[in-house]
Amino acid sequence: MTSRIVTVTLNPAIDVTYRVDALRVGQTVRVPEVRSRAGGKGVNVAAVVNALGGNGFALALTTTGTPDEFRSGLEELGIAHRLVPALTSVRRTVAVVAADGTTTMLQENGSPACEGAEAAITEALRDELETGAGAVVISGSVPNGMDPSVPARLARVCAEFGTPVITDVSGPALHAAADSGAVLMPNQDELAELAGGGRTVSALVAGGAPAVVATAGADGAVAATPRGVWQARPAEVVTGNPTGAGDAAAAALALHLAAARDVDWPAALADVVATSASAVLRPVAGEIDLGARTRWIPLTKVKETR
Amino acid sequence: MTSRIVTVTLNPAIDVTYRVDALRVGQTVRVPEVRSRAGGKGVNVAAVVNALGGNGFALALTTTGTPDEFRSGLEELGIAHRLVPALTSVRRTVAVVAADGTTTMLQENGSPACEGAEAAITEALRDELETGAGAVVISGSVPNGMDPSVPARLARVCAEFGTPVITDVSGPALHAAADSGAVLMPNQDELAELAGGGRTVSALVAGGAPAVVATAGADGAVAATPRGVWQARPAEVVTGNPTGAGDAAAAALALHLAAARDVDWPAALADVVATSASAVLRPVAGEIDLGARTRWIPLTKVKETR
Repeated sequence: MTSRIVTVTLNPAIDVTYRVDALRVGQTVRVPEVRSRAGGKGVNVAAVVNALGGNGFALALTTTGTPDEFRSGLEELGIAHRLVPALTSVRRTVAVVAADGTTTMLQENGSPACEGAEAAITEALRDELETGAGAVVISGSVPNGMDPSVPARLARVCAEFGTPVITDVSGPALHAAADSGAVLMPNQDELAELAGGGRTVSALVAGGAPAVVATAGADGAVAATPRGVWQARPAEVVTGNPTGAGDAAAAALALHLAAARDVDWPAALADVVATSASAVLRPVAGEIDLGARTRWIPLTKVKETR
Repeated sequence: MTSRIVTVTLNPAIDVTYRVDALRVGQTVRVPEVRSRAGGKGVNVAAVVNALGGNGFALALTTTGTPDEFRSGLEELGIAHRLVPALTSVRRTVAVVAADGTTTMLQENGSPACEGAEAAITEALRDELETGAGAVVISGSVPNGMDPSVPARLARVCAEFGTPVITDVSGPALHAAADSGAVLMPNQDELAELAGGGRTVSALVAGGAPAVVATAGADGAVAATPRGVWQARPAEVVTGNPTGAGDAAAAALALHLAAARDVDWPAALADVVATSASAVLRPVAGEIDLGARTRWIPLTKVKETR
């Protein structure tokens, strides 16, 4: 039986891609091609879980308005979901992709969450945990008007149920999540944020984090756990679109956390690094190149370090 | 009694403005402020007609989908309207305005018009002309899938009713409109397009155009008519946002065409140039600075030329 990976997206998005000839500041650019896709990190994680043969389920806030373009977008992507209407509108991100591949991202901050949003998403998560989940991934930003501790609080609810949980968040939310019982997945910037607050990786693990899996782009990733520390680099240098690499890493890790109480960390880390690199080959976040991943996993060398 | 100025918008838009710190190609930019406004040149013309104390009425195509964000936008702007659902969706334009004022425009091309769109908008226009209109302004692009001659055909319907009509169009639509009985309002690029096809301003007037009012930005405008040719320059050098200047010019001209069978061309031209310049002071198309306009009209020198 494939257990569900439930992802939590507090700040969903409609990801718009504008393909243009070239983007010249101060000029007018015609946009002959517009694509739209339900987005937000948790959506991308669920999509990659599905691509990996898992059973992804997206729990997210959405608009209180009608129609719900975000919901239609999830249905288009074939992602099972449960939505909590608690935002005036779902923010848009616009990726302007020039013919030479240069991508300029415009990210709307988003509308504030309604009062009661935290209670509603917490209740929905409890309900989904009661139904059953192999692991939970809480990713992305916290909408305006919502306490940055919410990801940490939701992680503690997962811990109540004994369900492994990953938090892929930054800023104040990351600081709050550091001792929530979640597996942390900081990138290099977020790692620096934590260290700046006195929280080195070893301090975090010593303080009770089940694991800290720090991703480093082309330099691979490090998994620090109570049982050991491992590192791995990608099998090949990859160029392309790195925007979904972190979400792909989280999806791969979540499936390993769900698979067994004792995680096979070398296998998990090789999967994280190969899956993450395979996302770079795809033009949009939420997609991976399965063939490349399959090729790379056995070629991904994992070293134990200390 | 204030007669109506009916504007026709075949390719409406939702004009989105992103205010950002700076737009750097290849980077990610946060957009803390998003504004949305019903757009399309005919909408802007109707808005300026209202600002000038006239009675603007926007006839436009719109989405067949729900909800109709364009319709809500017109209601928000307080613009009386009649919409013909005949597009899959209303296109978006995104103006990225940096803190230093540099504006980069991204313009979606838009979805195709449905079959039957031309017949539907023609019938709606006839109906509005029967209700009564002092003048009609047909502005902007023709949606994909619609014949570029449609503005010219709609202009001929106005001529049947004896209603003065302005066409503010470009490309193939402009060439088709040249002998439709409409007053033409080409900017400098469009003037060059016409001349390239052998249609100089004097040839157009000699061929039956009631007037050609060519706008030239900071250099003012020229009105060529059977009764004479006049030119006028703005009273002051103006810097700001020129995107709505042409629509403001068309609104001012339409009110003069509606006011009297024999247009007072010097007065009309001074109004066109002053109103157009006052639009440059405003941050969005569809707005004018009434105080500046009032100050500038008596200072706008109009010369008769030949």
